Amino acid sequence: MPISRFYKLYLSPNRKYVKVLKNLLGFVPGNLSLYRLAFRHKSVAQNIKKGVKNSNERLEFLGDAVLGSVVAEVLFKMYPYEDEGFLTELRSKIVSRNNLNALARKLGFDKLIEFDSKIMQSGRQGSLLGDAFEALIGAVYLDKGYDFTKNFLVNYIIKSHIDIHTLEQTETNFKSKLIEWCQRHSKDISFDVVTNEEGESAKLFTVQAIIDSEVMGAGKEFSKKNAEKLAAERACTALGI
Amino acid sequence: MPISRFYKLYLSPNRKYVKVLKNLLGFVPGNLSLYRLAFRHKSVAQNIKKGVKNSNERLEFLGDAVLGSVVAEVLFKMYPYEDEGFLTELRSKIVSRNNLNALARKLGFDKLIEFDSKIMQSGRQGSLLGDAFEALIGAVYLDKGYDFTKNFLVNYIIKSHIDIHTLEQTETNFKSKLIEWCQRHSKDISFDVVTNEEGESAKLFTVQAIIDSEVMGAGKEFSKKNAEKLAAERACTALGI
Repeated sequence: MPISRFYKLYLSPNRKYVKVLKNLLGFVPGNLSLYRLAFRHKSVAQNIKKGVKNSNERLEFLGDAVLGSVVAEVLFKMYPYEDEGFLTELRSKIVSRNNLNALARKLGFDKLIEFDSKIMQSGRQGSLLGDAFEALIGAVYLDKGYDFTKNFLVNYIIKSHIDIHTLEQTETNFKSKLIEWCQRHSKDISFDVVTNEEGESAKLFTVQAIIDSEVMGAGKEFSKKNAEKLAAERACTALGI
Repeated sequence: MPISRFYKLYLSPNRKYVKVLKNLLGFVPGNLSLYRLAFRHKSVAQNIKKGVKNSNERLEFLGDAVLGSVVAEVLFKMYPYEDEGFLTELRSKIVSRNNLNALARKLGFDKLIEFDSKIMQSGRQGSLLGDAFEALIGAVYLDKGYDFTKNFLVNYIIKSHIDIHTLEQTETNFKSKLIEWCQRHSKDISFDVVTNEEGESAKLFTVQAIIDSEVMGAGKEFSKKNAEKLAAERACTALGI
């Protein structure tokens, strides 16, 4: 065991935190402050300069990008005969907030993240877990570099915790996602078929997704069902769901 | 000079192509077939298996992700006191199709890309250049790894060809972008203020971006101008502009 590793694990004043991280991640972290930052939600962050807070949001930006790149390569090599549309869709399922939240919960991040407990009571926790997961990837990247982060993600996270083939089969249902969101936020939702424009094929359907009387997305397709799907997908995008 | 490099540049049957690439990229490429693939537009691609074409689109998917990650790190380190919203916006300007098309033209990609000349006559060339730029990043990544690609991008591309500080100042104007797009595609566009809902603050404005009688995006803000901007941005997203 190299002396620095021995020091970190057994002698350093931070040895408890180092052990917690080692158990979580499977490796001994270098720069601890990066990992502390990754687990600091904005609800407990403090201003450090010019209105910038020491929350995990900047690391999340970086980690999101590194994660996207690693997953892109994994899928690129795993599916040599699928086109970029397939790869893009499958990646977005893997890195979806739902999936990352569940993953972070499974890994026990809830015990590590610092946050103001009020946000839990108010139900505003949102994607606190998934965001921290991405921030952690940002921290690992800055601490250890790309190849290390890739190996960590592939061998420690993806192989053990993500079932890519199952995700491949599940279709993202934007309509039910949108309806669920509206129920949770007590909003009215309807899908209205709009009359065709003059000169337009009678076979085309235009559907608007209307939330609290506001058109949030519209889709035009050759079946009512597909037009609804498209309208729902666009409304999800517009609402950032 | 290592012998493999000497062979590639002076003896190999592909030495001409190797020299072209070396002049373009500043380094001697390893796996030439990756670079040929990066420069092959779908208009000249052939089916290789199960309906998959040997076009640059899969490499573009990979390169887009690697580029996003490298640019994220550059900005993360360049702007230590800006928040993730700032970083996200600035990155999207840097990797915008407009910017990448211009960059690829400047680098002389138009002489290297294989494509069916019919698509130029019909004006359907779209983002052929920018797409090939991303595909090239994918090729460099597979050929040489992440750190090499990052150095190449930072030292050969970003430092010489991208003026980040100028991009930082330019505001993306979604409204004029949308209007331009409608003019180019002969579509009517209007921004309509929708009457407030009952019980809603009189200070709120809801604006819909309506294209050929179809609502393509809506925004609600405390000024009419900002509501228009948001509606335009959402319509751009919905239309994939």
